[in-house]
Amino acid sequence: MDIRFATVDDVATIKNFIQALADYEKLSDEMVATDENLASSLFGDNPEAEVLLAEEQGKVVGFALFFHNYSTFLGQKGMYLEDLFVLPETRGKGYGKKLLAKLAEIALQRKCGRLEWSVLDWNTPAIDFYKSLGAEFMDGWTVNRLTGSTLSALAEHQ
Amino acid sequence: MDIRFATVDDVATIKNFIQALADYEKLSDEMVATDENLASSLFGDNPEAEVLLAEEQGKVVGFALFFHNYSTFLGQKGMYLEDLFVLPETRGKGYGKKLLAKLAEIALQRKCGRLEWSVLDWNTPAIDFYKSLGAEFMDGWTVNRLTGSTLSALAEHQ
Repeated sequence: MDIRFATVDDVATIKNFIQALADYEKLSDEMVATDENLASSLFGDNPEAEVLLAEEQGKVVGFALFFHNYSTFLGQKGMYLEDLFVLPETRGKGYGKKLLAKLAEIALQRKCGRLEWSVLDWNTPAIDFYKSLGAEFMDGWTVNRLTGSTLSALAEHQ
Repeated sequence: MDIRFATVDDVATIKNFIQALADYEKLSDEMVATDENLASSLFGDNPEAEVLLAEEQGKVVGFALFFHNYSTFLGQKGMYLEDLFVLPETRGKGYGKKLLAKLAEIALQRKCGRLEWSVLDWNTPAIDFYKSLGAEFMDGWTVNRLTGSTLSALAEHQ
C-alpha cells in the first residue's frame, strides 16, 4: 500500500473518482467538472486544492482531495477534506483510513488546528467509520450556498 | 458606508469582532485566538484568509472573514465565508448585506463557482436574512472534526 501526491498525469483518474463519488452520493447531476478545469485548477500556477492517491500494486484505488480552511476561534489555519473515495472492489483493506491518516500527518506538520470534512446523513458506513476515529459531529450547523443567478443578484446589490 | 480590506493595524478590532460573534453563538469557550496568531495567520507572508471591514463615518462596525474552498463537482474554486458580524447597535442599516454583496462581487471577479457559509440552526434572524438572498440550505450534510488527541492518534495510524 502506497500513498503519494497526484500530478497532472492523474487528472483522468481523479475525474473518474469524483464521478464515482457523485454517483454514490446520488448527486451525479451536480458533477460537471472536466479534465481541463481539473487540470488547471489543481495543477496550474495556483493550485486550489491538493490530491493524495492510494495505490495497490501500482494501480490507483482511492483518493483524497483537500485544501486549507481557517478557524477564527483558533486564529489558525485548518485542513478540509473535500472528497474521500476508495474503489468498491478494494474496500475493507484500510485504504480510506490510510489516506486519512496521511492527511492527519500533513495537517499536523503544517500546524493546522483541525481536520474537517462533511458527511451525508444517510451514509451510515461512512458515519460509523468516522465515529470510530473519534470525530466530533458538528450537529446544529447548516451550510448555505449561493451560485449562478442568486450570486450575481447579490453582487449587484451595492 | 464604506467597505475596505483589513490590514494588520485592524487585528485588535478583528479579534473583538470574533469574540463578540463567539459570545453571540454561545461558543465563547472555543475562542482562543490571540492578536499574535491572528496577525501572523492573516497578515503574514502567507495569509490564510482575508478580511473585509464595514465602516460608518470612519468607525469599523462589521467584518467578513473569508477564504477559498474548492468544489470537485465544478472542478473550480469557491469562496467560503467563515465569519460575518455587525455590531448590534448598527444593525438594520444594511451593513451585513453590503459586506456579503462585496464578497459576492469578489467571488465572481475571481471566477468562483459558489459562495458558501454556515449558520447555526437556532439563529432565526440570520436564517431569514440568508433565505431572503435566495441561499440554498444544504440539509442532510454534517461537518465532522478531528482535533487535538484524536487528530494525533489518526496521524500515527500509518
